[in-house]
Amino acid sequence: MSFNERKSIVVKLGGTEGLDYTAICTDIAKIIEAGHSIVVVHGGSAETNQLGEMLNIPQRTIVSPSGHTSRYTNLETLEVFIMAVNGKINTKLVQGLQKQGLNAFGLSGIDGRLIHAERKKTIISIENGKKRVIRDDMSGKITHVEQNLLSILVENNYIPVIAPLAISPDGEILNVDADRVAAHITNSIQADLLILLTAVPGILKNFPDENSLIKTLKINQLDDVISKVVQGRMKKKVLAAKEALLGGVEKIIITDGRVNSPITKALKGNGTWIG
Amino acid sequence: MSFNERKSIVVKLGGTEGLDYTAICTDIAKIIEAGHSIVVVHGGSAETNQLGEMLNIPQRTIVSPSGHTSRYTNLETLEVFIMAVNGKINTKLVQGLQKQGLNAFGLSGIDGRLIHAERKKTIISIENGKKRVIRDDMSGKITHVEQNLLSILVENNYIPVIAPLAISPDGEILNVDADRVAAHITNSIQADLLILLTAVPGILKNFPDENSLIKTLKINQLDDVISKVVQGRMKKKVLAAKEALLGGVEKIIITDGRVNSPITKALKGNGTWIG
Repeated sequence: MSFNERKSIVVKLGGTEGLDYTAICTDIAKIIEAGHSIVVVHGGSAETNQLGEMLNIPQRTIVSPSGHTSRYTNLETLEVFIMAVNGKINTKLVQGLQKQGLNAFGLSGIDGRLIHAERKKTIISIENGKKRVIRDDMSGKITHVEQNLLSILVENNYIPVIAPLAISPDGEILNVDADRVAAHITNSIQADLLILLTAVPGILKNFPDENSLIKTLKINQLDDVISKVVQGRMKKKVLAAKEALLGGVEKIIITDGRVNSPITKALKGNGTWIG
Repeated sequence: MSFNERKSIVVKLGGTEGLDYTAICTDIAKIIEAGHSIVVVHGGSAETNQLGEMLNIPQRTIVSPSGHTSRYTNLETLEVFIMAVNGKINTKLVQGLQKQGLNAFGLSGIDGRLIHAERKKTIISIENGKKRVIRDDMSGKITHVEQNLLSILVENNYIPVIAPLAISPDGEILNVDADRVAAHITNSIQADLLILLTAVPGILKNFPDENSLIKTLKINQLDDVISKVVQGRMKKKVLAAKEALLGGVEKIIITDGRVNSPITKALKGNGTWIG
């Protein structure tokens, strides 16, 4: 894969602590100046947890029977999530890009019904070894993305900055996983490349040993990686990577977002290259 | 003015407590079904005050020497404002309209640099009868609106829902007055009509006597009204009305947003008609 040609890139910034938004925005400006196009997707879990604590609204995690973790989002938590992610982080990122002279445009999946999802009406959570059924969770599984809306923004030279909310057929606001959002957006606009910035150097064979970075993976290795190698949030990233590959993207890079010029470095070989 | 023709209407919803967002969204759906087009602008002062209290960040008011009141917005308060107004209220309104089957699209003045403003670098505030100079306020005076961006949204059948943030030439995020935003948006898209929904029946000759409603005003009466009749927030509304009239709008209605079908009732004669 040569990056001398112009590429269409989706960059997803984790909501994990440790990412330097200013460094990322500076890097995005360089990448765009080099002729590539970028769509940004972000999370905001650290900010949501922090705001929840300040408001005395405890944040809880759901652990599925297969070991996936996700945020428990009742209506009260959803409001905190909306304020932190669609309010604070989205606005901060748009401003960061604007300061670099880029015409960023923040939106969430409910604006113009960009991201459609279905609410997970019952969720099984494992708590202290026991199964519990959760019925008031406002999380969703993405069904599709309005590609036309993204095209309108990109054609008019705006850089979309997307917050992970979605709308259900009943008009509910849903919390959706930002890595999955990035995968769906990548497929919808047929981007060449998806870069997932996170707080580790990539997929680690022996977490947290940063020297155990897996440099490359092919699609047929991903199921093994999901079941045997990675834990927690990284499981979702690899699942999102698989989804994006099946949807036709050339390459996914899971890489360190804590370094200077993280995207440029990823394009030069940093991180785990998948595909 | 006949409302049998199709009109382009800007509706501004106050951030005051007492407005019924569901009733307003239902009414907007009716108005659009009747063939008119609508752009929504909102405030969010009540929500900002509430969130500030919950976060133990006290909200302060600036009173100018001429008696205008505004929110004191340092960087900390701005963050609260962003979360409450651009996060919570904007998302809630977009969802309310989506539930009516309308394809609402939430954005603030920083998205795509919709609203440009200049920061008020020094502000004189009257506190306990004494003048105080405030230098860290992040409020702005609107200079212009990107009409092209609104046209793109409207031409693609989205209903813009606009939060009152603006961007400065230095890339600062600024808090701007939502009534002034509504006036600038009205002029920029050359709307026929601006409706300001508030928590009183209109301009009252003897506030708070709701029977003293002034039914009509002409532009040459507005300065007198500003200096002699109205107080507080209403001063800004009348100023915004004057600005919009000077910019070419046909009519401004300041009317009660607490009733059922507030926009329909305004079109039938409710409120104070200016122009």
